[in-house]
Amino acid sequence: MPDSPTRLREITIADLPALARGCAVLGTGGGGEVESGTLIALSALQKHGPVPLVTLDELPDDGLVLPLGGIGAPTVGHEMIHGVHEAYLMREAMEEALGATAVAVMSSEIGGGNGVVPVALAAQLGLPLVDGDEMGRAFPEVQMVSTNIAGLPIEIIGLVDVIGNVTILRPTDWEWAETISRMVSVAGGSYALMADNVISAKRMRGAIIEGTVSQAIRIGRVTEGAADPVAALMGELGAARLITGKVVEVERRTGGGFVRGSVVIDGLGEDANRIVRLEIQNENLVAFEDGAVLASVPDLITVVDMHTAGAIATELVRYGQRVSVLAWACDPLWRTPRGLEVVGPRAFGYDLDYVPVEEAAHAFI
Amino acid sequence: MPDSPTRLREITIADLPALARGCAVLGTGGGGEVESGTLIALSALQKHGPVPLVTLDELPDDGLVLPLGGIGAPTVGHEMIHGVHEAYLMREAMEEALGATAVAVMSSEIGGGNGVVPVALAAQLGLPLVDGDEMGRAFPEVQMVSTNIAGLPIEIIGLVDVIGNVTILRPTDWEWAETISRMVSVAGGSYALMADNVISAKRMRGAIIEGTVSQAIRIGRVTEGAADPVAALMGELGAARLITGKVVEVERRTGGGFVRGSVVIDGLGEDANRIVRLEIQNENLVAFEDGAVLASVPDLITVVDMHTAGAIATELVRYGQRVSVLAWACDPLWRTPRGLEVVGPRAFGYDLDYVPVEEAAHAFI
Repeated sequence: MPDSPTRLREITIADLPALARGCAVLGTGGGGEVESGTLIALSALQKHGPVPLVTLDELPDDGLVLPLGGIGAPTVGHEMIHGVHEAYLMREAMEEALGATAVAVMSSEIGGGNGVVPVALAAQLGLPLVDGDEMGRAFPEVQMVSTNIAGLPIEIIGLVDVIGNVTILRPTDWEWAETISRMVSVAGGSYALMADNVISAKRMRGAIIEGTVSQAIRIGRVTEGAADPVAALMGELGAARLITGKVVEVERRTGGGFVRGSVVIDGLGEDANRIVRLEIQNENLVAFEDGAVLASVPDLITVVDMHTAGAIATELVRYGQRVSVLAWACDPLWRTPRGLEVVGPRAFGYDLDYVPVEEAAHAFI
Repeated sequence: MPDSPTRLREITIADLPALARGCAVLGTGGGGEVESGTLIALSALQKHGPVPLVTLDELPDDGLVLPLGGIGAPTVGHEMIHGVHEAYLMREAMEEALGATAVAVMSSEIGGGNGVVPVALAAQLGLPLVDGDEMGRAFPEVQMVSTNIAGLPIEIIGLVDVIGNVTILRPTDWEWAETISRMVSVAGGSYALMADNVISAKRMRGAIIEGTVSQAIRIGRVTEGAADPVAALMGELGAARLITGKVVEVERRTGGGFVRGSVVIDGLGEDANRIVRLEIQNENLVAFEDGAVLASVPDLITVVDMHTAGAIATELVRYGQRVSVLAWACDPLWRTPRGLEVVGPRAFGYDLDYVPVEEAAHAFI
């Protein structure tokens, strides 16, 4: 749990811009862009008022926590209209399937728009939001969640597309959960609202990354009015700056429910004559320089505007942008053997041993 | 309901070969080949004894009928091993989701292996089998069922793959039911056990095609020991013989959860110098000769061995086979405006008006 001297008790409209900036930073390029999610949350808070922010300890043992997020290619999520009715359909389906009452909404991933939209969903459902999530960042696949690493089986997944089709999946394991959920999201237009393993508050305790909503707001606030926003952000995150430069190449393709591709940054100023290449699967996965790895999953790699420190989603990176690439350490959960098995470089098809960013990028810290 | 002077009261091992032959004929090439299904049914009847055959009227009003069948490309279904556990998982999931007790199994499509396997599933579950189905033949898509034509909404679909992944779908309409079910079946290896709209016996009355299990057995028996099996079969079906000849071309591709392609038959004997081409999407859809339609969906078109009258599934048709192509009238349900909307030639992408086979192929009756 991150340091949190003054824990937030609710999320108000005034918190949304900072939450959105922080979620974008934690999104490592993925989790969906935050702008449309922020508008949705703004509208929901205007209508329903502030959303209480709670810890799992404050929830009744047997109450269901709904870990919600969008599944699909962010480029598509960006273009589709989130309706209000998906959240209602999801709660109804989960309560009926599990014979228990939903007591809170949680972000399944704090990174990107998926960290922001649950504020709206909680407001719409009249439920509190858990201060925590299942990733502490964004990851592209269903099995890449803390509840999996904590050893909980995958028991149920809910999917509701924008049409209103409801799919309830009882998968045999986490990998099948990913395979089938992905196909269902593709069927519904490559995007769906997903509840990733709805279980009781009691069982979820110790199996999530706590405090990440507060952390995202704190990250978003640190750049407000800072003389050097990127430096302020690096200080808050404990991040290395891998390069500052210009985006000179973007390759991006959407298919099979993912965005994949790569981004090349050509160094400016003190980074002149350096080239860093990022590889993407919804999120920034690996940063290479001259064939060497500077940082890789599960550590966080985020592309930010070199002046404002605003994070840039993978689907919005484009030629000519002046950016800094920041990288910092992931939650310790992901550095365990089981964590690396699920989200280490090899889980994404890279034949690389994981090296913590503090070592791999020590020259840039 | 077909004439059925002596209605069967149960299905025994002795009925299986005739049932399999009849289902293959009604399959119009699809519904999965019948051989492996027959072995599964044989094994189940050996273990559990005969399966009672019932009408919907004999079932309790509120009891659930499970309309079961395989969804996916028959070429794949052919290669995958059906387990016993899918049926148990399906019943459990449907009873839990609907809060009612399953009282019978029904074939969702009587055609092909999908008409035979439910005998095994009923035996395994200790339930009777309904003498009827939702198609009276085989069709490739989820919405192509009598309950749809009867005006019932699609409320629930269950899918269980061979791995044991259970998916429950609450679709907004029949077309989404097809789209999402297809994707789920592809995710699980292009094949899954499906329950297509599980509803109470009361609601299902009048919305199925009754008597089709008995009909399939009768069709299978008519060729036993017949001097001219094809003629005997034609007599039972009231079928036209579109051509007798040699298969000279087979084009078949599996993708997106379907088998698609075409088969060309070069006439022999009195049909010399004639060429008939069949177009396929899991089932035989349209028979063309010189650009003219001899028969089309929803009427039934089946390729049979010219000597034994054994029906040949689309995935088993091959070059050099000597065959007769038979075509006969579908259930009147499919010739209604709503029926033709869902399963007429245009529903399969053919810009053709439906002409009943009695007219289109009158020269061959």
